[in-house]
Amino acid sequence: MNPAIGVCYYPEHWPEDWWQTDARRMAELGIKVVRIGEFAWSRLEPQPGDLQLDWMIRAMDVLGQHGLKVIVGTPTATPPRWMIDKHPDMLAVDAQGRRKGFGSRRHYDFSHLGYREEAARITQILADALGNHAALAGWQTDNEYGCHGTTYSYSPAARDGFRLWLQQKYGSIDALNHAWGNVFWSMEYNHFDQIELPNLLVCEAAPAHELDFRRYSSDQVSAFNKVQYDILKAACPDLPVIHNFMSRYAEFDHFDVGQTLDIASWDSYPIGHLATSNEPDDIKRLYLRQGDPDNAAFHHDLYRSVGHGRWWIMEQQPGPVNWGQANPDPLPGMARLWAWEAFAHGAEVVSYFRWRQAPFAQEQMHAGLLRPDSEPAPGYHEAGQVARELAETAIGGVANKGRVALVYDYQSEWAWEIQPQAAGFRHGDHVRALYSAFRKHGIDVDVLPTSTASLAGYDIVAIPALLAWTDELRAAIGDFEGHVLIGPRTGSKDQNFAIPARLGPDLPQNQLDARVIRVDSLPAGVEVPVKGGGAARLWREKTEGGAEVIMEDVEGVPVLLSQGKLFYLTASGDRALIQRVADYLIAEADTPTLALPAGVRCRTRNHFRVYVNYSSGPQTLAPAPDEAGYVLGGPEMEAAGVTVAKLATAGRD
Amino acid sequence: MNPAIGVCYYPEHWPEDWWQTDARRMAELGIKVVRIGEFAWSRLEPQPGDLQLDWMIRAMDVLGQHGLKVIVGTPTATPPRWMIDKHPDMLAVDAQGRRKGFGSRRHYDFSHLGYREEAARITQILADALGNHAALAGWQTDNEYGCHGTTYSYSPAARDGFRLWLQQKYGSIDALNHAWGNVFWSMEYNHFDQIELPNLLVCEAAPAHELDFRRYSSDQVSAFNKVQYDILKAACPDLPVIHNFMSRYAEFDHFDVGQTLDIASWDSYPIGHLATSNEPDDIKRLYLRQGDPDNAAFHHDLYRSVGHGRWWIMEQQPGPVNWGQANPDPLPGMARLWAWEAFAHGAEVVSYFRWRQAPFAQEQMHAGLLRPDSEPAPGYHEAGQVARELAETAIGGVANKGRVALVYDYQSEWAWEIQPQAAGFRHGDHVRALYSAFRKHGIDVDVLPTSTASLAGYDIVAIPALLAWTDELRAAIGDFEGHVLIGPRTGSKDQNFAIPARLGPDLPQNQLDARVIRVDSLPAGVEVPVKGGGAARLWREKTEGGAEVIMEDVEGVPVLLSQGKLFYLTASGDRALIQRVADYLIAEADTPTLALPAGVRCRTRNHFRVYVNYSSGPQTLAPAPDEAGYVLGGPEMEAAGVTVAKLATAGRD
Amino acid sequence: MNPAIGVCYYPEHWPEDWWQTDARRMAELGIKVVRIGEFAWSRLEPQPGDLQLDWMIRAMDVLGQHGLKVIVGTPTATPPRWMIDKHPDMLAVDAQGRRKGFGSRRHYDFSHLGYREEAARITQILADALGNHAALAGWQTDNEYGCHGTTYSYSPAARDGFRLWLQQKYGSIDALNHAWGNVFWSMEYNHFDQIELPNLLVCEAAPAHELDFRRYSSDQVSAFNKVQYDILKAACPDLPVIHNFMSRYAEFDHFDVGQTLDIASWDSYPIGHLATSNEPDDIKRLYLRQGDPDNAAFHHDLYRSVGHGRWWIMEQQPGPVNWGQANPDPLPGMARLWAWEAFAHGAEVVSYFRWRQAPFAQEQMHAGLLRPDSEPAPGYHEAGQVARELAETAIGGVANKGRVALVYDYQSEWAWEIQPQAAGFRHGDHVRALYSAFRKHGIDVDVLPTSTASLAGYDIVAIPALLAWTDELRAAIGDFEGHVLIGPRTGSKDQNFAIPARLGPDLPQNQLDARVIRVDSLPAGVEVPVKGGGAARLWREKTEGGAEVIMEDVEGVPVLLSQGKLFYLTASGDRALIQRVADYLIAEADTPTLALPAGVRCRTRNHFRVYVNYSSGPQTLAPAPDEAGYVLGGPEMEAAGVTVAKLATAGRD
Ligand SMILES: [Zn+2]
Ligand SMILES: [Zn+2]
Ligand SMILES: [Zn+2]
Repeated sequence: MNPAIGVCYYPEHWPEDWWQTDARRMAELGIKVVRIGEFAWSRLEPQPGDLQLDWMIRAMDVLGQHGLKVIVGTPTATPPRWMIDKHPDMLAVDAQGRRKGFGSRRHYDFSHLGYREEAARITQILADALGNHAALAGWQTDNEYGCHGTTYSYSPAARDGFRLWLQQKYGSIDALNHAWGNVFWSMEYNHFDQIELPNLLVCEAAPAHELDFRRYSSDQVSAFNKVQYDILKAACPDLPVIHNFMSRYAEFDHFDVGQTLDIASWDSYPIGHLATSNEPDDIKRLYLRQGDPDNAAFHHDLYRSVGHGRWWIMEQQPGPVNWGQANPDPLPGMARLWAWEAFAHGAEVVSYFRWRQAPFAQEQMHAGLLRPDSEPAPGYHEAGQVARELAETAIGGVANKGRVALVYDYQSEWAWEIQPQAAGFRHGDHVRALYSAFRKHGIDVDVLPTSTASLAGYDIVAIPALLAWTDELRAAIGDFEGHVLIGPRTGSKDQNFAIPARLGPDLPQNQLDARVIRVDSLPAGVEVPVKGGGAARLWREKTEGGAEVIMEDVEGVPVLLSQGKLFYLTASGDRALIQRVADYLIAEADTPTLALPAGVRCRTRNHFRVYVNYSSGPQTLAPAPDEAGYVLGGPEMEAAGVTVAKLATAGRD
Repeated sequence: MNPAIGVCYYPEHWPEDWWQTDARRMAELGIKVVRIGEFAWSRLEPQPGDLQLDWMIRAMDVLGQHGLKVIVGTPTATPPRWMIDKHPDMLAVDAQGRRKGFGSRRHYDFSHLGYREEAARITQILADALGNHAALAGWQTDNEYGCHGTTYSYSPAARDGFRLWLQQKYGSIDALNHAWGNVFWSMEYNHFDQIELPNLLVCEAAPAHELDFRRYSSDQVSAFNKVQYDILKAACPDLPVIHNFMSRYAEFDHFDVGQTLDIASWDSYPIGHLATSNEPDDIKRLYLRQGDPDNAAFHHDLYRSVGHGRWWIMEQQPGPVNWGQANPDPLPGMARLWAWEAFAHGAEVVSYFRWRQAPFAQEQMHAGLLRPDSEPAPGYHEAGQVARELAETAIGGVANKGRVALVYDYQSEWAWEIQPQAAGFRHGDHVRALYSAFRKHGIDVDVLPTSTASLAGYDIVAIPALLAWTDELRAAIGDFEGHVLIGPRTGSKDQNFAIPARLGPDLPQNQLDARVIRVDSLPAGVEVPVKGGGAARLWREKTEGGAEVIMEDVEGVPVLLSQGKLFYLTASGDRALIQRVADYLIAEADTPTLALPAGVRCRTRNHFRVYVNYSSGPQTLAPAPDEAGYVLGGPEMEAAGVTVAKLATAGRD
Repeated sequence: MNPAIGVCYYPEHWPEDWWQTDARRMAELGIKVVRIGEFAWSRLEPQPGDLQLDWMIRAMDVLGQHGLKVIVGTPTATPPRWMIDKHPDMLAVDAQGRRKGFGSRRHYDFSHLGYREEAARITQILADALGNHAALAGWQTDNEYGCHGTTYSYSPAARDGFRLWLQQKYGSIDALNHAWGNVFWSMEYNHFDQIELPNLLVCEAAPAHELDFRRYSSDQVSAFNKVQYDILKAACPDLPVIHNFMSRYAEFDHFDVGQTLDIASWDSYPIGHLATSNEPDDIKRLYLRQGDPDNAAFHHDLYRSVGHGRWWIMEQQPGPVNWGQANPDPLPGMARLWAWEAFAHGAEVVSYFRWRQAPFAQEQMHAGLLRPDSEPAPGYHEAGQVARELAETAIGGVANKGRVALVYDYQSEWAWEIQPQAAGFRHGDHVRALYSAFRKHGIDVDVLPTSTASLAGYDIVAIPALLAWTDELRAAIGDFEGHVLIGPRTGSKDQNFAIPARLGPDLPQNQLDARVIRVDSLPAGVEVPVKGGGAARLWREKTEGGAEVIMEDVEGVPVLLSQGKLFYLTASGDRALIQRVADYLIAEADTPTLALPAGVRCRTRNHFRVYVNYSSGPQTLAPAPDEAGYVLGGPEMEAAGVTVAKLATAGRD
């Protein structure tokens, strides 16, 4: 499939006699793919067992008549009200012990097996009824797993499931007591049925207790998805199964869910994602109408990995949305830029959310490609432009393999939320900071899971703030011939959330002769400058061992150590320090770089390099030595501009 | 009744042999009205059915002997502890699902019909026992409806009442599903008994669901008041029924409750009201010991409208209170100034809270006119001065009709709390900002409900940030020959909280050829300057249509549009922009203005203009052309000073 | 017992074959005392009734073989999981009504009498089994009563206990209604069984209701301790019973608990205690790696009073801990300085927490004297240095009696939390501010309870912000010949939390002719300068009466009054004002002072004055006239330095 644009459409929201016109206008605009159905359960089954699928088939017929391909979403994120009468205990319970009721969405508990059967039932019904439809191009399972904090439930169903899961994991209660360190504070259990969920305690639970609960909860999301995946693949082996993930959402392991997906997709709302992030205020101000220049790209690369190379944008912001504290209008051109950036990172489809702004209900202030009065909104024209430009440039192919790889790990996100030691210490922040530092030099970056068995082909691999080594990653590092950056805190625990016997980073002395013997954690605002530039903040480690000192701070504490091609960073750095460390690695590894103007970023796909200008003013590109002219735009980029260069040689893969 | 001062008195708090002295001193001070009884239920009925009204009659006897008139409050805001044993489920439930227990006040659920009957019973008992007492001058129903967040309850009683109310409103569940837009997210109900209250959901409820719950809850307050009103009017048709409202409290529709009141009153605590407001810190600092110079006045004008022209201050701050985060001593003279300002706006009575500071219980740090040791506190002397000055100036008559009117709407307050789109966007803020802008020019302002059928007689009417048009208001605007200012966001929804088919402001093209096609909402701190001065903040609309552009911002986005005498403001303005817009309207409408010194405000009543000086230093008045000298004070005003000018001609009415 | 260092040790956390080495190394380091057992219940009784005390006896044997003395903690802060099956309702309920479950520590309700019996049972078992062990040197009851907010429970058990306690206190419900002022808001009860706990109300409870609930809750802690004390003293009359208190924790009356203790101890974590305090940000920054220079000292003096002269540090921070928002590494030398400071204030033992950092469970990031890999951490060497220096200097004796005394009162802490009147007004802040002001002059200070019957021997006694006079304190002041400073707010209430008939400070006119007739409370950031320097903030009183005015503010409001040697401060002062007032008193009383460099503090014990340098740079001492040279260090102090001077004459006692 060539790169294509799509749109999210809700035929059930509009009179049936509008469908033809809508479909015709979509096709005219250049849209190829339409997602439907993911919130329509109350129309598909208005009463228990009263199935009403005809309207959806008719909608698919109309879309198909205009050459549009349809993705059908299973409606399991919005069970109808009557479902709650059948399964009153399917509603999740929050950490404060409150059942969350019906009246919005995602009102179900991943641990509730009765609801999991209902989800299987409706999935089977859709597979049977729609699986052979000529317009059908794939499935979306559910919608935005975990949105609104729904991964975790503190219900009896979750408690019972957790106990069973622990029993299967540990076999004996003694093994669990030992793994969790329950001798501390007399927390030892006599049998599995005594274990409660780690909420509403007097003070914090044992970290291994917390971590296992998060692992368990993540596994329920995977299991929920697998039920649907298995049904859909059995019915339609050739159609892809997709899920639409989110930004900076880490409550379950997306790599795991990716095991039962053919394509990963995500919902990209760059402006709100920046506003709700922990980026500093100056960045939020600078990119108010553009979104963070590295955040969408990071997720493109992440979900490309989750999707085993195949990924989409399932929902692309087309204008102002409704769910931020404030919802600014994007800079003119951003709805085009965001799509182009996604294609540059290998997206197969970028699907705008949504076709027409709904005048009613929760999202009535969320822009669509059309206004509520069916007139074109600004995003309409930008989407059409992207469609035309895709056709003209024929970008095709796949995203090229990066020269740098970063390991991103959901368990490490959970671990440092459970035990930050310095408030604000987060795994993801360390990964994203390095991502930006490399990307500012125009370097393509890949994102890898901890199950990665080989790092071959990369110049540099960075593994910051990792909870604990996996066997695969240990082996991969051992075999790797490129440069590796680890730390701070990497390998500082074992899989049971305990300090390893040889202390962090828990590597053999011949690999890295350094042990973390002290952690100095700092409140926000306190920094220790590093000689030569940059500063340590939040986290400083004191180490012992014979590794070479590359950088040290003004107190003489080593900051960057090395042993051969293995580098260990002992501190959380500010932006300047992270950039210096990245630059040092780049120089050591002889990785080629580009000189990009402020706010400009790029990525290569196939024979093309796509430049995007996130800054709010014009910027001028310097032609890169590997480029052979431009196929879209040129060196003078307007705000929100896109330029596509042709590469002289094919990209890496 | 001539303007008079009053006081709140609790005979049950003091030995009976103090009553004579208290009453004598009240009368000597010039007090005419005494409110009693509103928290005395446990003394009126110490055990269920054991009625003890004699002491209250004796207290009224004593007060009457000194020529004092008595307002008796029904004690329904403080049901005694035994009532909870009779009706355990009369306690309200908060949005977090917690029953709020006995031990303070307002511990009842407006939806609980059993308690509503108990309230009727005690009201009937008081009416029967006291209705003929010679000293009785009127009734107060309950006390401060809604105080401490008590309008909303999330109890089974509220849920059942809400379902019934919805059934009566919508008739069929299909009609409700359509009105709320429940097809969105499969929120459709099969029958009314499935509907829950909009709390403890996974994410936000449908806005129409929320709005209907607020309408329902407001209706319960009205119904609760009506029960008492009907009993009291049946017993004593000639005595007024009053309720004491609060400041910036909008959880129920006060105009609706006003339908079953003869007089509106409110409880004015200017210093705490400023401290707990969202006014900027510099205003809070500047008026720390005075209160906001426009807030009390706004409420005077609001409640004059709620009371159909008749209104009182039932509780007037006399000194430091107890309920603020801090409780500063008012500037000497403020207890006099506040009373005079109320009289200027048409108050019939200003009643100080309270006679003697109670040395015990929750409000022991709340000043009275007397100290706990019965010596005069500063407010005592200021109250006496007001009484003397009222007699000397013989101000009489009623507040004059304003030249400017503002429409204030409780439903719009609810709507934008439910869906601000920019955090901090509030209906009331828009109304009050315009109120201040006009008032700074010495212009008398009236406040009108959306049920207003005619705007005749006003120079200018402003209707900012209105949820949806009422038929009355549409008609009134159509007939009106003066200048009208609407927007931003006015008419942007219909009564079902949906975007109207022709988009906001939802007026016919011949009235205003402008449609809002985009909303750009901004975080706090981001402003877009307007050419010529002022800035847009929080909210900017982009419009299309042929209306004339009067002002535009630096990006060329129109800010003020006009078509004939109808003006549309597209943005939330900072103070400077709002002042510019008001000034523009004033100039267009040729409305006369005064040049007032900083911190000085005025209002006309009958043949008088009352000036008050909220600033902390002296100010000098310029005599106005329509004045014929001063009857109190003169052009040199001290801090907290009051000057009353005589008008050459009678005021407008 | 000569001053000695100790350590906290958890034999149950380590293989038994490590115990010998551990004990040997402890002894070699100079450790004399080892605390064990306080969290070991699940190992002592793994199943109900299955007692396993042998391992503990073996551990004590090993420790004893190396000459170490053992303190055994009763394990009642961590009942095992099976206990919850026996007593499901022993779990406390928080103010939001939520039961707090098993899985951390302190999961019990002080009001639960069934658990109190279980605590007695295990205490008796330990007393029987270990009471005669040769190594046993004393007992610790439970651990950190109240930690994690566990003093208050809002459970049915607490409610029932509270009702009984009230019945015993008041005898009749009429007496209670009168004492609480329940006529206000019809809060009157008909019988004790109607009384609920003061949580989850509509607004605040009557202050006397709140205060009685706090008194009741405090009494339960005392009763809980007494059960264990009585058992332990009956079994081992000669062994001391100790409890380990905390910093700035005031939820129960420590003087009361001290009635059933032989020695008070506390757990000193200076860095986290500063970080979590309300000290200003500049102090937090300045002493980031040292802790507040006066906070530990204040608690040393407080707990010396609680312990009737005998006190220990049971847990001394040895390095970074785990429970702060950030956990900075202490300045090198602080683990030594803190210990020396404690000894200067009379500590018998300073026991480091803990021997070896645990690699598992909640406190795995908490440093020990050993690292998790059993290598010495920095604190190890500092502890050893202290042990050697103690031996060399032979400091011995007891802390000398101070020249200044401060009255500290837990009931006053509760009172102003219940009714601050200005947010942030706290009893403890007033006491600590004066403590620092006197201590900066090198003056030894004592801390006294309100039950103090004689103040003889002090130059100056200060009693700030006291809720209400006790008979003892009234009498003691009457008899005292030194200088007394009281106010602000001292004596402003009676024991029923009501304003006294003659108003605050409620002293006879011949003692102090001043009455507080008005309180002006101020928001944070508003200050009123005092003539001559300093400012009033938060709290200003206006007084009447004939006392002499010593200081007044720029508005002419008297700030410091005096009558003879009795001084009354009418305002909450900033640091400068508090220092001026202290200096004034010092001059009046002719109390000798020292000139100490910034960050340096001192205390005398026996024939010694110990100087400690909290500043982060070197400081130079001026020899004091009463000193005869140095026995440790000298006048040049490094950062974190300690200098011990020999006094020419013995100290005061
Ligand atoms: Zn979402
Ligand atoms: Zn109130
Ligand atoms: Zn603790």
